[in-house]
Amino acid sequence: MTLPAEFHDIAKRINNWGRWGEGDEIGTLNLITDEVVRSAAGTVRSGRRVPLALPLQQDGVQTGMIPGRVNPLRTMVALNLEMFGPGTIATSDDAVTMGLQAATHWDGLTHVSHSGKIYNGRPADSVTAHGGAAFSGIEKVTTLVSRGVLLDVAAARKLDRLPGDHAVTPEDLEAAEELAGTTVRAGDIVLVRTGQLRSYLGGDKHGYAFPSPGLSIRTPEWFHARDVAAVANDTLTFEIFPPEIENLWLPVHGLDLVEMGMLQGQNWNLEELSEACAEAGRYEFFLDATPEPFVGGAGSPVAPVAVL
Amino acid sequence: MTLPAEFHDIAKRINNWGRWGEGDEIGTLNLITDEVVRSAAGTVRSGRRVPLALPLQQDGVQTGMIPGRVNPLRTMVALNLEMFGPGTIATSDDAVTMGLQAATHWDGLTHVSHSGKIYNGRPADSVTAHGGAAFSGIEKVTTLVSRGVLLDVAAARKLDRLPGDHAVTPEDLEAAEELAGTTVRAGDIVLVRTGQLRSYLGGDKHGYAFPSPGLSIRTPEWFHARDVAAVANDTLTFEIFPPEIENLWLPVHGLDLVEMGMLQGQNWNLEELSEACAEAGRYEFFLDATPEPFVGGAGSPVAPVAVL
Amino acid sequence: MTLPAEFHDIAKRINNWGRWGEGDEIGTLNLITDEVVRSAAGTVRSGRRVPLALPLQQDGVQTGMIPGRVNPLRTMVALNLEMFGPGTIATSDDAVTMGLQAATHWDGLTHVSHSGKIYNGRPADSVTAHGGAAFSGIEKVTTLVSRGVLLDVAAARKLDRLPGDHAVTPEDLEAAEELAGTTVRAGDIVLVRTGQLRSYLGGDKHGYAFPSPGLSIRTPEWFHARDVAAVANDTLTFEIFPPEIENLWLPVHGLDLVEMGMLQGQNWNLEELSEACAEAGRYEFFLDATPEPFVGGAGSPVAPVAVL
Amino acid sequence: MTLPAEFHDIAKRINNWGRWGEGDEIGTLNLITDEVVRSAAGTVRSGRRVPLALPLQQDGVQTGMIPGRVNPLRTMVALNLEMFGPGTIATSDDAVTMGLQAATHWDGLTHVSHSGKIYNGRPADSVTAHGGAAFSGIEKVTTLVSRGVLLDVAAARKLDRLPGDHAVTPEDLEAAEELAGTTVRAGDIVLVRTGQLRSYLGGDKHGYAFPSPGLSIRTPEWFHARDVAAVANDTLTFEIFPPEIENLWLPVHGLDLVEMGMLQGQNWNLEELSEACAEAGRYEFFLDATPEPFVGGAGSPVAPVAVL
Repeated sequence: MTLPAEFHDIAKRINNWGRWGEGDEIGTLNLITDEVVRSAAGTVRSGRRVPLALPLQQDGVQTGMIPGRVNPLRTMVALNLEMFGPGTIATSDDAVTMGLQAATHWDGLTHVSHSGKIYNGRPADSVTAHGGAAFSGIEKVTTLVSRGVLLDVAAARKLDRLPGDHAVTPEDLEAAEELAGTTVRAGDIVLVRTGQLRSYLGGDKHGYAFPSPGLSIRTPEWFHARDVAAVANDTLTFEIFPPEIENLWLPVHGLDLVEMGMLQGQNWNLEELSEACAEAGRYEFFLDATPEPFVGGAGSPVAPVAVL
Repeated sequence: MTLPAEFHDIAKRINNWGRWGEGDEIGTLNLITDEVVRSAAGTVRSGRRVPLALPLQQDGVQTGMIPGRVNPLRTMVALNLEMFGPGTIATSDDAVTMGLQAATHWDGLTHVSHSGKIYNGRPADSVTAHGGAAFSGIEKVTTLVSRGVLLDVAAARKLDRLPGDHAVTPEDLEAAEELAGTTVRAGDIVLVRTGQLRSYLGGDKHGYAFPSPGLSIRTPEWFHARDVAAVANDTLTFEIFPPEIENLWLPVHGLDLVEMGMLQGQNWNLEELSEACAEAGRYEFFLDATPEPFVGGAGSPVAPVAVL
Repeated sequence: MTLPAEFHDIAKRINNWGRWGEGDEIGTLNLITDEVVRSAAGTVRSGRRVPLALPLQQDGVQTGMIPGRVNPLRTMVALNLEMFGPGTIATSDDAVTMGLQAATHWDGLTHVSHSGKIYNGRPADSVTAHGGAAFSGIEKVTTLVSRGVLLDVAAARKLDRLPGDHAVTPEDLEAAEELAGTTVRAGDIVLVRTGQLRSYLGGDKHGYAFPSPGLSIRTPEWFHARDVAAVANDTLTFEIFPPEIENLWLPVHGLDLVEMGMLQGQNWNLEELSEACAEAGRYEFFLDATPEPFVGGAGSPVAPVAVL
Repeated sequence: MTLPAEFHDIAKRINNWGRWGEGDEIGTLNLITDEVVRSAAGTVRSGRRVPLALPLQQDGVQTGMIPGRVNPLRTMVALNLEMFGPGTIATSDDAVTMGLQAATHWDGLTHVSHSGKIYNGRPADSVTAHGGAAFSGIEKVTTLVSRGVLLDVAAARKLDRLPGDHAVTPEDLEAAEELAGTTVRAGDIVLVRTGQLRSYLGGDKHGYAFPSPGLSIRTPEWFHARDVAAVANDTLTFEIFPPEIENLWLPVHGLDLVEMGMLQGQNWNLEELSEACAEAGRYEFFLDATPEPFVGGAGSPVAPVAVL
């Protein structure tokens, strides 16, 4: 099997390899300049902070469908331990085992490869079992702060939740932009709300996973045209799943991560943010979504905060 | 053994139990109001972002001295895996096992107890092996964003690194405040630089761990007087270690976490920030240091970012 | 809630506290003498070996119903790594995270407590989060080798699998003993086959877990009378589940582990053994089922081997 | 760099590829026939059992020198948890993270590759990050039971511990055979004692790791001539380390595992066994050393038991 012409055509139009130099490892994050961040700080009006991460717990979004992507198992390694003798200050420590892509997370640029390549044309086998990603590991994203824009596609369509077979198109994004009252611009982090997370929040993990609305194969070109820095949403799969085109699996991943070099975020909780933006009548905010710097990581959990 | 009168005297003066209600679980983070955050956003001048986390890797700061506090072991659970057949988009996933207090982290309020109590007078045994912290788990800190102030004690003393037996006193903090040109105020996150991390960065893990400069038992009163929201520094132990008073182990932990209900941060990398502040001639900045929301957690790794 | 009189009556009759001294930590394993083992070696006729462990894998018997009892996640930490330079011998290493009670395992004597006590009358809180079991940790079982006897209750009833509500009684054990053509005696390890594992082997994990046939509350007295060293079976819960007596949960665990000090094994695969014994017309064999010596462990995975 | 002619010459003489068929995945374990096991059972005289595994604990033999080979971290996931309500039977469960090659273990046949091949001529890249070993995974070793023979090289040389630069030669093995009063034969599991573990037992982990006595590059031919089933010893590296021939790293691993298809065991505690054999005046015994069946595993911890 090879990827169809349709995929390669889009790939050609949005390819960013070499755009920031042969040595580049962070792709579209280069679009976040000091100026962009300064301006993002200017969007803060009320000082209200909205957290966007799901709680990290055994009862997380993973169902076992994706082998190895295990929900967090946090255990105590010390529990009120009087390390220095009876009656002294006691300590409690914990440890965790978890999949880096298990909860609210960023896909790193090496999370997918196609045709033997990762972002910037490097060989896929530069990612190894022992060292992880030699290039574009998630630790190269030292900070991820910019203007955030919520594109509330579900709200723009006056739905709580998009249907499971709804591919979010550029037209959807523009309708949400209109609702937002702002235009997406270079260096923005775009958050696309489908409402799909409500399935999980309502107790239906399997319904959350599949079938799922998500981004259409037509969106990478739109994000490329706007020079977006990164995109996240409130689904497990990011893109519509099962896919729009038969047997073309995860095309948006291939286009965003490999061709454009743009991080993708999944399982973000955009419910409170949706309400907060609606209340404020503003859909732009200061956003910090810096991943944990796992050396060689193909991704990382993240606890993003929007400041309105 | 019981804690000495000296400890209890200070404890009485700084105790915040009940200050934000019997049900409170976040202590001094209550001091971060919308107004504080709005004002913090106003400190952004250049848009320069400085990351404060150490890379997460096997070769981390832990030496095995503290049982169970294991350096991160990140492994690939999928590596260019063509899950949907040959020639399809391939995925790479990873998983990690790590101590939550192993790297750059926040101590949660339940990280220590004394005399059978945690913050707000709750019983220490409300922290359990299975559920972790029933109260004041780190997930209750949904966001941690405020004005950050760097108190560069090493620089104020014109030292690269404070000596291993140097207890950072209120006088040190005030000298650093003078260098900073700003006064620490309610809701601030204070970062205290000792330069101790240079030992680790220079390859000496054991020298980094011990002996270590750190905060004096006299500092909790100072932080309490200023109504600081949280304090972090660039050492393994946070407070001076071995302690100032013989056989009084971890008194600052007991005072900050249990009595005041104030988060402590350790192993923060303040080296680049020190340079950035010196260059800018400004020691205040917008700081996001939101922990990962581990349910019941006694702490969490954090990837803090200062925006200048 | 307290445990009913019925439980305490049996407990009294089978209690072994002090039987092997106040300092004892291994309970009925004391019954395995050199003489018993010598005689067990004499049961070997053909030299046929039958493995009794399930494969250790992500797709194991756990369903997530029991929090923290996670199926094994094995990952590569090195993969054909030419550690000493290109063209040298390459190494592949792996690491695992798993629940010690997740797969084919022994419950250690500290796996349960009741009324604040563990085996030999020690306080339940002698098991701690940091050190695990101070007494009777699984590492105290340095070897577990004896005569094994298969009591094939399903076969004796001419069933593939006992119904989900079938409590295995002393009468069942005696019928199986008759089929086996041997009498259970002091120091034996008894393997009780219900056939329940066939649900899991057939792909039905939930059906395997619940409802499940298993040992009746009447069996501990039978095992006590025979002075059995240890008992294992082919179910997730060991005893019938849901329980025979309303609201009396896990009574067999309490009786076997706490009162008698007798190890219990679960999730053992007795299918091939059932056939091998039937073919040989003999139900006794040499059995090694030594647990991994996890210091302080409340249990351990085990890879038992029967030698016929 | 390529492997020297010397290596390839030996390789040719001992190569077992195809010997047990193209489909074979267990190599020399094929030499353990029912007859061998029946005869092994006949070596039991006293019924004395000697455990050969080191305790599994944080304070294990690993020093961090080999990345990813982490000592066991066992934690409680439930601690006297009254799952069914107050006053009910309470349960304690634990979980572990550990390197499969970290403690007393078997190297599986895929633990090393050379020249792109593993045992039986299969491609090295048949071992993958997600699935582990597609062929010759440690789970294929369903049982490992045979006659064990202790070759106490240290005792034969009247030393507590061989010097760090001592390569154990065929002559050493034969001297130990003479001491043992038995001849190593087809299907045996040979345990070679160097005494090196005494360094670790005496508290010197680094001295234990390096420099270490171990098997000479000349031993694979000897084991091949005798048709040994498996070999284990009491060192971290199995073979002499640093190696006998400059820049020829881990040649014995390459010869034993890849060419012969013979499992290697490391970090076995042979101290008590040495005494037991000397006391009994017999160095043969029944040995069960079945690994845990990790699917795809490149090795496994093992808790071997010798029955004398």
